[in-house]
Amino acid sequence: MKIYRFPEKETWADLVKRPVFEREEMSGLMKEIFEAVEKDGDQALIQFNEKFDKAITPQIVVSEAEIKKAEDEIPDALKKAIRQAKENILKFHAAQIIEPEKIETAKGVICWRENRAVEKVGIYIPGGTAPLFSTVLMLAVPANLAGCKEIVLCTPPDRNGNINPAILFTAKLCGITKIFKTGGAQAIAAMTLGTASVPRVYKIFGPGNQFVVAAKEYAQRYGVAIDMPAGPSEVLVIADHKAVPEFCAADLLSQAEHGSDSQVVFITTDLTVFTETMDEVEKQVSRLPRNEMARKALDHSLFIVTKNIEDALEFSNLYAPEHLIMAVENFEQSIPLIENAGSVFLGNYSCESAGDYASGTNHTLPTNAYAKNYSGVSLDSFLKKITFQHLSREGLKNIGKTIEIMAEAEGLIAHKNAVSIRLK
Amino acid sequence: MKIYRFPEKETWADLVKRPVFEREEMSGLMKEIFEAVEKDGDQALIQFNEKFDKAITPQIVVSEAEIKKAEDEIPDALKKAIRQAKENILKFHAAQIIEPEKIETAKGVICWRENRAVEKVGIYIPGGTAPLFSTVLMLAVPANLAGCKEIVLCTPPDRNGNINPAILFTAKLCGITKIFKTGGAQAIAAMTLGTASVPRVYKIFGPGNQFVVAAKEYAQRYGVAIDMPAGPSEVLVIADHKAVPEFCAADLLSQAEHGSDSQVVFITTDLTVFTETMDEVEKQVSRLPRNEMARKALDHSLFIVTKNIEDALEFSNLYAPEHLIMAVENFEQSIPLIENAGSVFLGNYSCESAGDYASGTNHTLPTNAYAKNYSGVSLDSFLKKITFQHLSREGLKNIGKTIEIMAEAEGLIAHKNAVSIRLK
Repeated sequence: MKIYRFPEKETWADLVKRPVFEREEMSGLMKEIFEAVEKDGDQALIQFNEKFDKAITPQIVVSEAEIKKAEDEIPDALKKAIRQAKENILKFHAAQIIEPEKIETAKGVICWRENRAVEKVGIYIPGGTAPLFSTVLMLAVPANLAGCKEIVLCTPPDRNGNINPAILFTAKLCGITKIFKTGGAQAIAAMTLGTASVPRVYKIFGPGNQFVVAAKEYAQRYGVAIDMPAGPSEVLVIADHKAVPEFCAADLLSQAEHGSDSQVVFITTDLTVFTETMDEVEKQVSRLPRNEMARKALDHSLFIVTKNIEDALEFSNLYAPEHLIMAVENFEQSIPLIENAGSVFLGNYSCESAGDYASGTNHTLPTNAYAKNYSGVSLDSFLKKITFQHLSREGLKNIGKTIEIMAEAEGLIAHKNAVSIRLK
Repeated sequence: MKIYRFPEKETWADLVKRPVFEREEMSGLMKEIFEAVEKDGDQALIQFNEKFDKAITPQIVVSEAEIKKAEDEIPDALKKAIRQAKENILKFHAAQIIEPEKIETAKGVICWRENRAVEKVGIYIPGGTAPLFSTVLMLAVPANLAGCKEIVLCTPPDRNGNINPAILFTAKLCGITKIFKTGGAQAIAAMTLGTASVPRVYKIFGPGNQFVVAAKEYAQRYGVAIDMPAGPSEVLVIADHKAVPEFCAADLLSQAEHGSDSQVVFITTDLTVFTETMDEVEKQVSRLPRNEMARKALDHSLFIVTKNIEDALEFSNLYAPEHLIMAVENFEQSIPLIENAGSVFLGNYSCESAGDYASGTNHTLPTNAYAKNYSGVSLDSFLKKITFQHLSREGLKNIGKTIEIMAEAEGLIAHKNAVSIRLK
C-alpha cells in the first residue's frame, strides 16, 4: 500500500498515473496471427487452440449437444441467479430505448434520427482464471434489445477442449447460437476477417488479456469497431466518518482479486476510518482464495487522506476511475461534483459487485482514465443513429439562401447549384 | 463513369469496395511529428507552419485583434446566413438532450445515467482549397450544448500567416476563444500532447487530409479519443421515374467537387432518368470552378440500374454511404429498409447541401462504409454517460443472493464477500 496523508495538489498528476502499457512490440505478433487466420481460417484457429490453450478441438463450433449438456450441468440456484440478473439488466437497458422525435428546424424542414442496430456483432469472453459468464449477459442483453441480427461469441476452450458450462448456458439463455472455441488474438482476428465457421462482424465487444486488447486495437485497421480501449480494472472508494471500514475493505478487495494489475484507490477524510480500513483489508485478504493476486494489486494501491470530500472528488475526477464508490453520508451532494467516472455506487449498501452482476447497470466500463472521454457499454453501443431529413419545396426556399451564401463562401459552387437548380 | 446495368448480386461485394488507404508508411512520420511537438512545443508548430504551409507565424495564438478584424471583413449577408444555420443546428441538437430517468430494477435498487460533458475537446478545421467554417458550427454548437469547459480550435494559416475570416467569425460566434494557427498532423499532436499555448484535450473532432487522419489515429495511443475514423466523402443517390435528372446531377456533382477521391454512386430503376442524369452531369460539370477535381471523382463513379428500389436499397446497405439521397416518390416506404447510412435525404427537395449547411443535422458523418458500425457526430459525441446506483439495505438483500451465487460461480470470492459482509 502506498500511503499519502493530505498530498499536495501538485503531486496528484503523478499519483493518478496508470502503469504504462507496452504496445509497439505487439503489432508484429498481431500481424502474424491475423495473417494466419486470414490464410488458414478455421484450421489456424484449431492450431492456435493447441499452441496457446493446449486444447485439442477438432471442431471449433460449439455443438447443440454441448450446449444441452451444459444446461444439464448448471445447478438450479445458479440458473435462477443468472435469470434474475438478466431481468434487471434487461430492465435497465430497455429504459434506454428512445423513440425518434421529428424536429421542424425551419418551416418545411423536418429532421430526425432513427436507430438501427449494428447488424453483426462479436462478443469475446475470456477463459482463464474466472469464467466471466456475467459478461455474456452484459453484452448479449443490449445486443438483443438493439436488434443485432447476428451475435457471435468466441471464448477459449479449456485443456479438455470444453467451454465453461455457465458461459454456454448464459449464451443460450440470451439467444446466442453461434459460439466458437477460440480465444486470444486469434478469436478477434476470426471475427474481424471471418472464417468458414466464424462470421465476420462489424463491431467487437468484451474484455481480455493484453493479447486480446492488442488484437482489438489491430482489428480496427480492417474497419471493425470496438466497444472501447481497455486497461486493468479499477475502483476508487471515497469514505467519510460514516463509512464502514469492513465494507470499504471488502470493496477494495473485490477489485484487487481481479488480477495483480488491478488498480485500487481508497480516499477518506477520517483518520479512524483510514486506519481501520487498512486493518480490515489485511484481515480479509488472507481469507481469499485469490489472495496472492490480491496482495500484488494491494502493493501498488493508493491509500489517501484528504481534508474534505470536495478534495477527494477533485482527485477522483483527475483519476477518472472505472468504478467510484461514494461511501459517504450525504452522497446526493457529491453527485453534481462527479465529472469523470465509469459507474458510481452511492452509500454504504451499493457495493461494486451489485453492478458487476445484478443491479442492471452494465459492467463493461472505461478504465485507464478513459472515463474522461468514453462512456461504458449501453444500448447505444449496439446502435447507429441515422439522421433523416425531408424538405418540402417551401422548406428548401426557407433555408435556400443561407445554403447558397455559405456554399459560395466555402468555394463549393456545386453545393450552391444543388439549391439554385431546384428553386429556379 | 463506370456503368452497370442490372449487375448480378455476386458482383456487388466488389462494387462497394472503397479505395485502399495506405496506413503503414505513415506511422514513422507521425512519430517524428509527435516527438517534435512534444519536445519543442509551440516552436515546433511555428517551424512546421513554415515548412508545410509556407507561412511565417511568430505567434500561433490568434489574437483578439485578428478576430475583430475578421468580423469586420465578413459581409452582412454571410453573417446572417451563418447565424441562421447556427440556429437550426442548435434546435436539432438541443432536442437530443435527455433527462436522466431513474429505474428501480428491483425493490430498493435504483439505477440511472447522467450526462457529463467531455471536459476538454479539440476541433480541427482544414484550410486548403475550401475554408470549412460550416464545420466549426457542426462541432462547436453541440460542444457548447454539451457543456464542454474547454473548446480548442486549430486550423492552418495561409501563406500570409492568416486564418480565413469566416472561420474566425464562426468560432467567435460559437464562443470559442482558443484558436491556434497550426494545421496537419502537428495540430493534432499539439492538442494531444499540449504545448505552452495549445491546451491538451481529451477528444479530437474534425475532418482533414491523409496526414490529419493518420495523426488522429496515432493520437489514440496517448489516450485521446476521436470522433470517428475517416475516409473520402461519399454520396449515393437512389432515383425512380419521378426523380428529376437535373437535381440528381447537381447532387452527384456537389459530392464530386469535394475532391478527386470523392465517392459518387447513382442508382436508378428508370432508364430514361439514367441517361438524362448522365447527360446532365456532363452539362453541369463543365460550368463548375472545381470541375477538374469533379471530373476526376466522376472517373471512378458508379452509375447503376437496378430492377427495383428494394434492390437499390440492398446495394446501398451493403455500400453503407455517408449520404443517401432517396429521390423517389414513395420514400416513406423505403425508410424501414435503410440499415446502413450516415444521413438520409428524402424526396426531390432534400439536397445534400441542405444537411451540409443549414437544415440542422450534423454533417460530420461516417464514410468509407463506417456507417455500418458508427453514427455521425451528435450531442452524445461530446458527452459521457455515467451510470449511478443506490441500493438500500433492503435493496441489497433483494439481489444479494443472486450476486453471491454468480460471484462464487465465477470464482470471485471477494465479490461475494462484499455482499455477505453487508448482510450478515
